[in-house]
Amino acid sequence: MSGIETLPGIEPLGDATPFVDRIHEIIAAIRLFDDFEGREIEMLARYMRCYRAVQGTEIIREGEAGDFMLLILDGSAEVIKQDARGLPQVLAAVGPGKTLGEMSLIDGEPRFSSCVALDPLEFAVLDRASLSRLVTEEPHLGVKLLMELLMLLNQRLRTISAELIACREARRLRIR
Amino acid sequence: MSGIETLPGIEPLGDATPFVDRIHEIIAAIRLFDDFEGREIEMLARYMRCYRAVQGTEIIREGEAGDFMLLILDGSAEVIKQDARGLPQVLAAVGPGKTLGEMSLIDGEPRFSSCVALDPLEFAVLDRASLSRLVTEEPHLGVKLLMELLMLLNQRLRTISAELIACREARRLRIR
Repeated sequence: MSGIETLPGIEPLGDATPFVDRIHEIIAAIRLFDDFEGREIEMLARYMRCYRAVQGTEIIREGEAGDFMLLILDGSAEVIKQDARGLPQVLAAVGPGKTLGEMSLIDGEPRFSSCVALDPLEFAVLDRASLSRLVTEEPHLGVKLLMELLMLLNQRLRTISAELIACREARRLRIR
Repeated sequence: MSGIETLPGIEPLGDATPFVDRIHEIIAAIRLFDDFEGREIEMLARYMRCYRAVQGTEIIREGEAGDFMLLILDGSAEVIKQDARGLPQVLAAVGPGKTLGEMSLIDGEPRFSSCVALDPLEFAVLDRASLSRLVTEEPHLGVKLLMELLMLLNQRLRTISAELIACREARRLRIR
């Protein structure tokens, strides 16, 4: 499993099938899994495991190895990254329907930022081994999930690229 | 087809199967398609079409609709984006093995930047319709290609996110 089971403050809730209704509710509000049919969500849920974390739990730690993404079902979490001086900077606060940790799920590289539960947090986890099984056993569903992940990363890439260009522009205007 | 056939300065070279050897050469040097077998590259080539563009051709234009990515086989191209004042800024120069235009292939949103041939350019094109056919007809190969695209976007996202954080940090230190 994901290594997440060994973290203090985390209670395993089993596979995600009992949470299919909640996942259905969530996908009504978000883009990820938007065009998945009910049957496909149920199939997908079999490859995910659910957990509950107490407030303050660091679910993901910057710089550590990690191979799973999580989908927040209930509660909220803060995304934190250390700046150049080693001081924690809050990058975002996220709630139900948001995913975290996709980058390490995909490339296995160390976590880019940390993620801490702001209140009791329920979430579904998809790890690399499950993703591999999913694309092998259900390639059509796998393709759909990978396309959704591509859309998600792509959107983020467009946003961050535009922010970077704006930041460089602002720096240039101030410096010159 | 991709709409690219209607551009001046572009000569269609047919599907990519005659270029399989060249594509093999290229993948030896790059990560994309890295773990594709020869047979899979040949299969993939059937879904791509090759073109040659004369020097100075704007293959992709910022802000325009687009639904294809291209893989540079020979020659080089400049990636250009207009800044806030409408002046062109060169973001990068890229050569054989580099891909361009994946973001619009994936989400169909307008092109983020322009792409101009710096010298006679040969490239293979994969458009949305071909990608859809590929994932439907060859889901296992489709999964592999999507995973490669995910790796690519992911790596870029990590790089650009780090650059953005550094830029904001630099701005903050100068301003305060």
